[in-house]
Amino acid sequence: MEKKIINLGIFGFGVVGQGLYEVLNRTKGINARIKKICIKDPNKARPIDASYFTTDPNDILNDPTIDVVVELINNTEDAYQIVSTALRNGKAVVSASKRMIAENLPALYQLQVENRVPFLYEASSCASIPIIRNLEEYYDNDLLNAVEGICNGSTNYILTKIFEDNLSFDTALQQAQDLGFAETDPTLDIEGHDPKFKIVILLLHAFGTFVKPEEVYNFGISHLNDFDIQFAKQRGCTIKLIGSCRRSNGHVNAYVLPHLIKEHNLLYDVYNEYNGILLESAFTDKQFFVGKGAGGTATGSAVLSDISALLYNYRYEYKKIIQNNSPIFTNDVQLKVYLRYKSPDQVDLSAFYNISEKYESPTYRYVVGVINLQKLKEANWLKNKEVNLLVLE
Amino acid sequence: MEKKIINLGIFGFGVVGQGLYEVLNRTKGINARIKKICIKDPNKARPIDASYFTTDPNDILNDPTIDVVVELINNTEDAYQIVSTALRNGKAVVSASKRMIAENLPALYQLQVENRVPFLYEASSCASIPIIRNLEEYYDNDLLNAVEGICNGSTNYILTKIFEDNLSFDTALQQAQDLGFAETDPTLDIEGHDPKFKIVILLLHAFGTFVKPEEVYNFGISHLNDFDIQFAKQRGCTIKLIGSCRRSNGHVNAYVLPHLIKEHNLLYDVYNEYNGILLESAFTDKQFFVGKGAGGTATGSAVLSDISALLYNYRYEYKKIIQNNSPIFTNDVQLKVYLRYKSPDQVDLSAFYNISEKYESPTYRYVVGVINLQKLKEANWLKNKEVNLLVLE
Repeated sequence: MEKKIINLGIFGFGVVGQGLYEVLNRTKGINARIKKICIKDPNKARPIDASYFTTDPNDILNDPTIDVVVELINNTEDAYQIVSTALRNGKAVVSASKRMIAENLPALYQLQVENRVPFLYEASSCASIPIIRNLEEYYDNDLLNAVEGICNGSTNYILTKIFEDNLSFDTALQQAQDLGFAETDPTLDIEGHDPKFKIVILLLHAFGTFVKPEEVYNFGISHLNDFDIQFAKQRGCTIKLIGSCRRSNGHVNAYVLPHLIKEHNLLYDVYNEYNGILLESAFTDKQFFVGKGAGGTATGSAVLSDISALLYNYRYEYKKIIQNNSPIFTNDVQLKVYLRYKSPDQVDLSAFYNISEKYESPTYRYVVGVINLQKLKEANWLKNKEVNLLVLE
Repeated sequence: MEKKIINLGIFGFGVVGQGLYEVLNRTKGINARIKKICIKDPNKARPIDASYFTTDPNDILNDPTIDVVVELINNTEDAYQIVSTALRNGKAVVSASKRMIAENLPALYQLQVENRVPFLYEASSCASIPIIRNLEEYYDNDLLNAVEGICNGSTNYILTKIFEDNLSFDTALQQAQDLGFAETDPTLDIEGHDPKFKIVILLLHAFGTFVKPEEVYNFGISHLNDFDIQFAKQRGCTIKLIGSCRRSNGHVNAYVLPHLIKEHNLLYDVYNEYNGILLESAFTDKQFFVGKGAGGTATGSAVLSDISALLYNYRYEYKKIIQNNSPIFTNDVQLKVYLRYKSPDQVDLSAFYNISEKYESPTYRYVVGVINLQKLKEANWLKNKEVNLLVLE
């Protein structure tokens, strides 16, 4: 077993960066030390010694004694510059920037192939759940049919508070932000962009299929109101924001949509900032992974696990790409949904393949029916706050 | 990425062996083929071509063209002979024999170190759940506090049928055996020996601590009766057979005992032949893995995943042994338990540290109190079928 000491150069010292620092300090048996931390604002008060910090990226990128670059910043463009430069400079890279990774997967894949350096990003998907590594290492031979579940901690925290503690949407959101579960821009979470980036990454490691984030439809929980919540409760269900990749006859579809979840579903009991991922495969049926999906130390420990893996020269093999029989991405799949609206002119029911239930009242109306995912993606009328959508089991 | 074709020599062609054959046949992208299968009874009818089979172990062990020996037989002594000989002959070995492995872990660890060949046994613990590999690869740096859960598919199937379908113990056991979930000798399952072997293996990969199976106390579900089941239901609980390894102040304790499980516990919803493992660590809090714990293809696909890992030269690093700060095993830990009996002379209540509840009736009596695990291990009176034990949350 090769064992060496590696020097880390870290970009960003926010929640995750500080979580990593704490985890690293309290962890025995890992030979890695922080050499430099590159931050934007030199005047901001920092909990650790000033000698760690620099504002010049080159102090890390051009330092030959730094083996591993850890990229933990928010700005997507800057993050990509840092990661791509580091890889070109022959440095191993660990990143937690789901958006940057999802938007640049083909280029990043090429960069690590060309420069023969590892690029690990377990923390970018479901924080503490080792899902990418399990898809890479363990599910490389099984006939995987689906990867889906709760992959956004802050919206799950909000939905838990709404259903378990009867909090309002806004109070729950505020709590999630106060606890550091919500991203800097909450719309990334509540409109389902953040889980979409994770789904794009999981899609590649599960099936070997590259897809641009904009090709994947996401509809979050920002339209959710008390009427929808009552509808769910009357049917003995809770609501979870679900990211899904599912294979069907040679194709694979993906989306992020709020689902009605029944009590016997394993996802029902995934509470607060926890994430839960269900894998379906031909031989093992369902497998389920649950872990904290947000918070500094949970994400920090995922980053540290990648750093630790580098000590053993681990890298993603991207076996499904190499096996080269990946399914083609499609949005052509039928979904059974609940559609809530106020007045008929707000929606286009002709987009439905069929409608099995209709409800009218002075406040709201809804239909239950089957609609094609592509039609949902094209439906501008879904942007209306008085219209909401839930997928039924 | 190294890619080669490997030849397999398989010992045993029972449920798991045939499951492996099926999984291997239906799986693309894995370059492994079965060359020989060694079986005991040449006259038994086989579902595949006779040319695969031999009754002479040396046809596999001494065949230089066979790279990997897959050991899937029931007899523990024979299994150890096959595995140790194969390792000495420089062959990589994959095994699913939890008992053989648990009873010989120190020797098997030495053999693979000395002969520099990989020995993988993911299928030996929780079948389809990749728990050993996650403990090895992903939880090597985190401060792991506990590994516990449901690691026996047949008893969980039986308990599910008892609690969900109100079946009798015997009917449920018969069903489990008919479905191939129960081991050849059901006492291994229902008395908690089988999960104990898994706990011994998980203890090593979680904490780096070697322990003999006989040092770990196991009490199964064979004493369970309707009175106990009513007791559980009245408290809104179900009963699960739990294997546990838990670290506390520099020591680690382990056992297999039936637990009362409340509805909000993630283990509550692990049904039928599924297994569920909870990990507790300092930074990620709880993590949860669920998957099929029994059945030919579930176990077969775990074996195949090990075979596939060998194609990429994977081996267990036993990092916790090498880090060399493993906790010492102890049975000195207090447990809060329910103890049911018929007459006072059947039990020794003086063994309890304290007793908080006492119940008497013409049929049965019970106490709820705190008792030391070592005292339970020494209590011969627990062998009496009229006495039963449940751990309370």
